[in-house]
Amino acid sequence: MRVEQLRGGWVEAVHEVHVAVVDSTGGLVARTGDPELVTFWRSAAKPFQALPLVADGAAERFGLTSEELALACASHSSEPGQVALVRGLLGKVGCSERDLLCGPHPPLSDRVAQDYQRRRLRLTAVYSNCSGKHAGMLALARHHGWPTEFYTRLEHPVQQRCLAEVSRWTDVPVAAIKTAVDGCGVVCYGLPLRNMAMAYARLANAKVVVEAMLRHPDLIAGEGRPCTDMMRAHPGRVIAKVGAEGVYCAVLTQKGLGVALKVADGHAIASALAMAAVLEALGLRPRPASLTARPSVNTRGETVGELHVNGGLEQ
Amino acid sequence: MRVEQLRGGWVEAVHEVHVAVVDSTGGLVARTGDPELVTFWRSAAKPFQALPLVADGAAERFGLTSEELALACASHSSEPGQVALVRGLLGKVGCSERDLLCGPHPPLSDRVAQDYQRRRLRLTAVYSNCSGKHAGMLALARHHGWPTEFYTRLEHPVQQRCLAEVSRWTDVPVAAIKTAVDGCGVVCYGLPLRNMAMAYARLANAKVVVEAMLRHPDLIAGEGRPCTDMMRAHPGRVIAKVGAEGVYCAVLTQKGLGVALKVADGHAIASALAMAAVLEALGLRPRPASLTARPSVNTRGETVGELHVNGGLEQ
Repeated sequence: MRVEQLRGGWVEAVHEVHVAVVDSTGGLVARTGDPELVTFWRSAAKPFQALPLVADGAAERFGLTSEELALACASHSSEPGQVALVRGLLGKVGCSERDLLCGPHPPLSDRVAQDYQRRRLRLTAVYSNCSGKHAGMLALARHHGWPTEFYTRLEHPVQQRCLAEVSRWTDVPVAAIKTAVDGCGVVCYGLPLRNMAMAYARLANAKVVVEAMLRHPDLIAGEGRPCTDMMRAHPGRVIAKVGAEGVYCAVLTQKGLGVALKVADGHAIASALAMAAVLEALGLRPRPASLTARPSVNTRGETVGELHVNGGLEQ
Repeated sequence: MRVEQLRGGWVEAVHEVHVAVVDSTGGLVARTGDPELVTFWRSAAKPFQALPLVADGAAERFGLTSEELALACASHSSEPGQVALVRGLLGKVGCSERDLLCGPHPPLSDRVAQDYQRRRLRLTAVYSNCSGKHAGMLALARHHGWPTEFYTRLEHPVQQRCLAEVSRWTDVPVAAIKTAVDGCGVVCYGLPLRNMAMAYARLANAKVVVEAMLRHPDLIAGEGRPCTDMMRAHPGRVIAKVGAEGVYCAVLTQKGLGVALKVADGHAIASALAMAAVLEALGLRPRPASLTARPSVNTRGETVGELHVNGGLEQ
């Protein structure tokens, strides 16, 4: 499978895609490219970084709502309502925005980014797309009585706890997981696509987190963004979660299938188009209109080509 | 050759590179990947779109300066001085900014873009990185008494004249050149990398245009941009010209060698790093410090990896 950038009728650029589709035992159901490719899970690991909140009792103790749990799993759009929910979560655990160690960045939603720029809003840590995850990590630290300082570092018990959870769901031993620093400063995990897909296939077992995500497609990403569009197109049947640098994961809840894909060169839009095509191939028809192809418009407003998926899955 | 995005010590994304290095007879001197890859020349075709200005006598008739010719070959940074020169060129040929059909876009230089945004400057057609090329096309129309309206269209004599010039330098028959609409609205040309490289190798024969480009590395792109940095690092010895979607071309004036490369997925920074590595491999040592590798910095300001070239040319 590859995602092609067309200009006129001709291919101008290509984005190679690697896909693993597996069942909850890790059995490979379908693939394309190299399903054993090792890459970083990035933000697609967020549901597993949120799971200790439930497993260790922090969610119950602090009375976290399904909205707050969904945001802990999200790469949100920094929408005002999303940011307010993260502030509420921080307050519940006796923390504030000042405890967040994620760096600021322009909102992932162009619409929100333009709105905030027009209003000259000062972007702080709570506006980071990862602020829900970070707030969840602070909640975990509070729950266990761990220090809230330096919670992003590999040696901090919060990161060690998340790493253990990732190992448990992916069946990759902690020592075999490659670690590096993520865009927001926490630990990120390098492992094979097949293992990522298996963890997603098994995610159905994590009822509280799965139900929170399924109930709030609008919080997992945001208005007009691919994860939200894919989940809204098939309510209750799919969770889709993007990661940076071309990673995308999903679980088909009714079929018990997990999907992990990587666009080799890291192209973000290509990865969303590829995931929409994979989900369609696995029976979630039709894919959202916004994700069938992406028109290319030049500086004069003329449509001069499109980005689209070519090829499918192999058994 | 590939350009690798590292995170920690691990490869997170890869950008495949195709390169053709040829002499003025089209003989392949070095290569990597597929030197016969057909792709769009985009802005790397600009010197050949400017050549009719000299060949047909328009440059002499309107008294075009070397600065103005350099800008006709440029993807400039929309710097105030560059924009002023384009306005001057338009005035010389009895045209104005209102005749330009290129669309506006944020300046290619981040520094300039931020400056203009801070000052809320309204970006018009003359700020397009292609405004020098468009002004040159208007000059050509004026010189021949062709209409200045619709000069971007394939059937307009300006585009037909440029297409013939491209065919002449690349040895690809007009009928075999794939055409489509470029980012700025004019015709762009699809042809093999080897033919692009040959045209650059032969460019030394186009003295007036070559001298204009060699004298003004600051106008071919702009302060801090790769084409300018590569040309300044080896004054008089190289012309480097970027195109959109991962295309890059160069001529080594003393060796009479032409280079054309394409990053398969269209990644712009990868293409600049690859060209710097190719030029170094061909004897232009050392490559500019800004183009040895590109650090990746996360939202917290931490360096978490880098983009760098792996692999070299084959004979």
